[in-house]
Amino acid sequence: MAVGSLLIVVCGVIGLLFAYFLYTKVAAISLVKDSYESAGEGFVLEGLVGAESGTSMKECFQKLRQIYRNIEEGAKAFLYAEYRMCLLFVVTFGLFVLVLVSHVDGGWDFQVGTLTASSFVVGAITSMVSGYLGMMIAVFANARTTVCATETPANVAWTGSFNCAFRAGGVMGYALTGLGLLILYMMMGIYSSFYNYSTDALKLFECIAGFGLGGSSIALFGRVGGGIYTKAADVGADLAGKVVAGIPEDDPRNPATIADNVGDNVGDVAGMGSDLFGSFGEATCAALVIAAQSGDLVAQGWDALIFPLYVSSVGIIVCMVCSFVATDISPVKCEADVEKVLKIQLGLTTFLMTLAMYPVCSYFLPHQIHLGESLYTTACYGDSSSSKCIDNAPSAAFFCVCSGLWGGCIIGFVTEYFTSHSYTPVREVAKSTETGAATNIIYGLALGYKSTIVPVSVLAVIVYTSFSLMDMYGVSLAALGMLGTLATCLSIDVYGPICDNAGGIAEMSELPEEVREKTDALDAAGNTTAAIGKGFAIGSAALVALALTSAFVSRTGVLDKGVDMLRPITFAFLLIGSMLPYWFSAMTMKSVGLAAMEMVKEVKRQFDTIEGLLLGTPGHGPPDHAKCIKISTDASLKEMVAPGLLVILSPVLTGTFFGVEAVVGLLGGGLVSGVQLAISASNTGGAWDNAKKYVEKGELYIPVPKRHPAPGDPEMGPFTGELVRGRDGSQEMVMEKQKKGSECHKAAVVGDTVGDPLKDTSGPALNILMKLMAIISLVFCDFFMSINNGKGYFNVARET
Amino acid sequence: MAVGSLLIVVCGVIGLLFAYFLYTKVAAISLVKDSYESAGEGFVLEGLVGAESGTSMKECFQKLRQIYRNIEEGAKAFLYAEYRMCLLFVVTFGLFVLVLVSHVDGGWDFQVGTLTASSFVVGAITSMVSGYLGMMIAVFANARTTVCATETPANVAWTGSFNCAFRAGGVMGYALTGLGLLILYMMMGIYSSFYNYSTDALKLFECIAGFGLGGSSIALFGRVGGGIYTKAADVGADLAGKVVAGIPEDDPRNPATIADNVGDNVGDVAGMGSDLFGSFGEATCAALVIAAQSGDLVAQGWDALIFPLYVSSVGIIVCMVCSFVATDISPVKCEADVEKVLKIQLGLTTFLMTLAMYPVCSYFLPHQIHLGESLYTTACYGDSSSSKCIDNAPSAAFFCVCSGLWGGCIIGFVTEYFTSHSYTPVREVAKSTETGAATNIIYGLALGYKSTIVPVSVLAVIVYTSFSLMDMYGVSLAALGMLGTLATCLSIDVYGPICDNAGGIAEMSELPEEVREKTDALDAAGNTTAAIGKGFAIGSAALVALALTSAFVSRTGVLDKGVDMLRPITFAFLLIGSMLPYWFSAMTMKSVGLAAMEMVKEVKRQFDTIEGLLLGTPGHGPPDHAKCIKISTDASLKEMVAPGLLVILSPVLTGTFFGVEAVVGLLGGGLVSGVQLAISASNTGGAWDNAKKYVEKGELYIPVPKRHPAPGDPEMGPFTGELVRGRDGSQEMVMEKQKKGSECHKAAVVGDTVGDPLKDTSGPALNILMKLMAIISLVFCDFFMSINNGKGYFNVARET
Repeated sequence: MAVGSLLIVVCGVIGLLFAYFLYTKVAAISLVKDSYESAGEGFVLEGLVGAESGTSMKECFQKLRQIYRNIEEGAKAFLYAEYRMCLLFVVTFGLFVLVLVSHVDGGWDFQVGTLTASSFVVGAITSMVSGYLGMMIAVFANARTTVCATETPANVAWTGSFNCAFRAGGVMGYALTGLGLLILYMMMGIYSSFYNYSTDALKLFECIAGFGLGGSSIALFGRVGGGIYTKAADVGADLAGKVVAGIPEDDPRNPATIADNVGDNVGDVAGMGSDLFGSFGEATCAALVIAAQSGDLVAQGWDALIFPLYVSSVGIIVCMVCSFVATDISPVKCEADVEKVLKIQLGLTTFLMTLAMYPVCSYFLPHQIHLGESLYTTACYGDSSSSKCIDNAPSAAFFCVCSGLWGGCIIGFVTEYFTSHSYTPVREVAKSTETGAATNIIYGLALGYKSTIVPVSVLAVIVYTSFSLMDMYGVSLAALGMLGTLATCLSIDVYGPICDNAGGIAEMSELPEEVREKTDALDAAGNTTAAIGKGFAIGSAALVALALTSAFVSRTGVLDKGVDMLRPITFAFLLIGSMLPYWFSAMTMKSVGLAAMEMVKEVKRQFDTIEGLLLGTPGHGPPDHAKCIKISTDASLKEMVAPGLLVILSPVLTGTFFGVEAVVGLLGGGLVSGVQLAISASNTGGAWDNAKKYVEKGELYIPVPKRHPAPGDPEMGPFTGELVRGRDGSQEMVMEKQKKGSECHKAAVVGDTVGDPLKDTSGPALNILMKLMAIISLVFCDFFMSINNGKGYFNVARET
Repeated sequence: MAVGSLLIVVCGVIGLLFAYFLYTKVAAISLVKDSYESAGEGFVLEGLVGAESGTSMKECFQKLRQIYRNIEEGAKAFLYAEYRMCLLFVVTFGLFVLVLVSHVDGGWDFQVGTLTASSFVVGAITSMVSGYLGMMIAVFANARTTVCATETPANVAWTGSFNCAFRAGGVMGYALTGLGLLILYMMMGIYSSFYNYSTDALKLFECIAGFGLGGSSIALFGRVGGGIYTKAADVGADLAGKVVAGIPEDDPRNPATIADNVGDNVGDVAGMGSDLFGSFGEATCAALVIAAQSGDLVAQGWDALIFPLYVSSVGIIVCMVCSFVATDISPVKCEADVEKVLKIQLGLTTFLMTLAMYPVCSYFLPHQIHLGESLYTTACYGDSSSSKCIDNAPSAAFFCVCSGLWGGCIIGFVTEYFTSHSYTPVREVAKSTETGAATNIIYGLALGYKSTIVPVSVLAVIVYTSFSLMDMYGVSLAALGMLGTLATCLSIDVYGPICDNAGGIAEMSELPEEVREKTDALDAAGNTTAAIGKGFAIGSAALVALALTSAFVSRTGVLDKGVDMLRPITFAFLLIGSMLPYWFSAMTMKSVGLAAMEMVKEVKRQFDTIEGLLLGTPGHGPPDHAKCIKISTDASLKEMVAPGLLVILSPVLTGTFFGVEAVVGLLGGGLVSGVQLAISASNTGGAWDNAKKYVEKGELYIPVPKRHPAPGDPEMGPFTGELVRGRDGSQEMVMEKQKKGSECHKAAVVGDTVGDPLKDTSGPALNILMKLMAIISLVFCDFFMSINNGKGYFNVARET
């Protein structure tokens, strides 16, 4: 076996083994504590008393296990329903792919079609398996994180609970990357027996490209359906608690809480996982297809050809090494450590990846590469002879990978700056609640808009650098570079919903206040890391979409003078393309609203019909969690049809009726407008969420106004917070500490609720819009070309 | 005098005369009612009793006149401060233009520079004069509208108050269009003595183009500064009332109310006027510059060359004729008439314009036109011989104008659909307040996103049609077509703030409830018309920006292969360009928030220091309105610097350092992303505003929940609304009528407050971003080209 193949296989296997190792670590935590079990009903551990009415720890643990089982059931129910629909889609769309791809140059070549369709199916199934594993481990770990948080002394609890959640995240991270890498490589091996790489490299990798399409299709379900699920449950539970019954969101009496907890996993674990898996698949496939067109790379042999896979392979090892820093070398010992440790992870992996990539680039790539004739370079640069030849290929490739790697890192840290309550922006938003919900919303929206500046500029620099250095091969390498730290990203990403669930479980099992405080702090960091993960996902999606768009342009073959932006048809569709993200967001946000309303109605029905449920009279019937889960599941699957069709049909109809120039406009517009909307939506939502947490932590103080007797205004009640002396600007005055239930907190909750669908449904779903539209255009390229030489039905009528 | 010149001059003069005629009509309404004045203190007219504590009508009218004078003073104070800054800017930037434009082909030609700078100054001053007239007539008419609304019987009051507001709007509309047309034409006459049109047409019209730049520069102040002013005052007044004192927004005790009333005029009258005037100037200039490059048009003579001006000329007459339908033929007699009459105006003018334009096109244009060599057509189509020659020019021009005309009309009606509470979308938003402020915000945002679909598609169709038919000449004709109904648009646009003010005055002078009800209804229609006006403004801005961008591309001369969207540098700046609207919006929204906070502090200070003000004890000192006006004024002028610099510097820096390809990316990105953000922001805000009005009108009924005893939740008070039997979906149940002060109303107010800066500051200001960036690029084109042949400083370094 060649060195390159060995590297890939070894890294992939190590990834899988490490995922298993992490699993055993998490599984070692027991949900049964003998010390509590053996004690009688009245046993109360030193310093640890159940929060309400002196419930014993034994009872708390019983409840905890019950809730754990409920969430597990709910998660399985959702996955079952979703995956059934996914399979239906995979079969239908797979047949579609089979037929369309087989139709080559007016004849039929079923080998190409079958292989492409097979890799499509394999890609889809790999994504589903990864999602399943992720969901299951997340559900497995949430109650265990809560249990760890009950330990004494505090530092043991901090270390234990953080490690549990982080390791569970790692299970998902390493399993997904390892599995993806190994299966993709295996496919390449198998397909090599149909097409020899030294003669038919392009055909070989075009068949492999179905893998990316498969991954991305599942991401449509994960992100859009999952996004609607999670926020329908979340918003519904919030509103039901507040509007119908006046109880907190996590109250065990609220039948929608389990759906809410399941939803966190659905959105942030399965959704995010499938999204990033899709990016990984598409970026790799795009890079491979482009590499296959370079005679130099093919001549250099298999090891040089499959260079794109090394980025991900090396990434697994680097991430693994770094993860020990978080869990063992410098573990979390107090609240302040959480964010620090997560940030170090991000910075350290990026740094080590940079060191590791240079030798890899030097070893495997030839010094000079001609990036194939049919490439976009030749077409658009005009002066083809000079630019399609890359002179110092190892360095160029290294810089492309690094631009993505460090660009992702910068995007991550900027996202953190804008969404963590450790910094000014979120604190300003929190402070704006002083004048009510409206200013909170205005400041939050402004924050989201502002937060696009740096990430978009970074993306522009990455595009410019990598595109200039190695054309679209460079862009796909940059995307892979950004995804190089995928395993770490996924770990800290999955960490978030686990902690969120852990907090919910602590609340519902009425564990002591201190436990909830710990899980809340872990969760606040989790909100930020979720935003970071979203930043990575959006950035890589944009790069992948660009690479795929360029590949589309190059494959059409008719746009050899470049895509003139100011052609009437192109500009018209650039406008329309930029509108699609808005249309798409309108649909997804509205869906969340509708589904949440349905949830509210169901909760109300249960309170009306289940005797004693709301009053909590002893012996009352249990709330019907399953019904709420079913509502969310059904809503998500029903409501994702329209946005899904929008994404799939837009490029197909545009290409058919208006031609390839229109498609490029559509893709370009969707990309440049979608990126902004996605980033601002994610960050706005994250900021509101953490602004609320900031108020809840009791860190917001507002000056006590010299209030006037306001006749007839019941809202001007007495002070509810603690009074201290403090400074507001230059003036010293009496300040009131804000807490849960204060007016400021109520205003912050409004922001949080608005932010939910923005950050977890409409925002991240835009990634799929960008990527899927591009890859579908690429797949249907031949079809578009067959209609009036790519000018489309209406457009050609106009021009003659 | 030739027929064409005669047409222009006659139409322009008629416009001015008609404006004067309308002014006399408004001036005929007296603010002193003898019937009330002669009566004693206790006199109470039949059915009309001052709303609070039986204040007599005489006292009400005294208050009304006082408030009227306060608003007038405030408006003058603002205009004085703003125009001082404008003049400073005009002088500085004028010198800049003088020097840069004089620098031609390495030498100096001060005639060109001086003439361009002069037309810049004239354009700016014309815009300022129009803005001043508009503000003054709006302020003049607001109290008169209130007075008309006090008449009996009701139908007289409806007709009188509507006509007063609508005619006052007309004064602005006809004065602006008439003045703009005449002065532009006069300039052309004067400049003809420097450059003969038959030999130097291009030079002649390039000098005239400064007129458009001047208009647009003032629009920067009007839209951005004015937008910040109006919303700082509005949001500040709202919050101050609610947070500090618990009194309604329009309470006479609130010192910020006068600033709020002034602000309505500043934003919607001066701001909108200067924006549309800028579009008119730029579209006309763009069309003229392009026409000058066509030998056929020049050969056909002056009348054919100045064809673009006829669109606006004919528009004045058509709008004038139609306006009689609203005021005399079918006047407003009851509430339901208001929206109907305004809609008929829009449809009718569009229809008559269509009829009128065909003979104009046929008469003045030659059958065949070659659209000059240096045009973009030649460059991008490649097959130059066929497409640059327009065969049936009159028809083509007619269709271009009509596409803009009808496109504008459709955009207007769609905007109305999404922002009027007569239709489902706003009612849905209103209904969503049932579950609180958060769902209201979610539904409102979704509505705004959704409302982009049709307008953007219409714009895409206009661009495609007009661009295909007559290249960028077509696009500028389409823009002029959309602005063809400018006088009507401005009338119904200025109508809005007048009614808003009239309502405020009615409230503050404690006039009877019925009066306020009438002005509120007029105002609700005004909100919708304001949104329609914004739709027009955005649409025309987009078309103008595109025409200017194309002109830029054609003038560079280096992009003769078209602007390849997928060049690294172009795509990178396409991304950055799409980000600018977000950056810009972040700044403007934050500015509003900050200025509003300052306002709140000042109000609090006044309540603290002015004895008896808040309690309304007899003989208390008057609130210090002037101080509040000063805060808004200062804030608006200070806060507009940063966004202004962003707009001006972005294209200049991009062009200097990265070259013209980067500039085209920047302009294209800013355009396609700005349009979406502008439309969604305007419509979201309009919808929230009218959703609130819908609740206030008492038209929202929500099902009475079978509420549960919620221990410790004070919000679950007794029902405050009237109970009726109604249907919620399929179920019949008891419904509670919502009104001011209900929980639903509170939630609606949050939406309204959030919408304020969106619809009146950040949204409309984006028009300026799009247009100004484009025209500045055009002006600096030669400068960019002089740096490394248009490749810019950094870019050329990369490529060698």
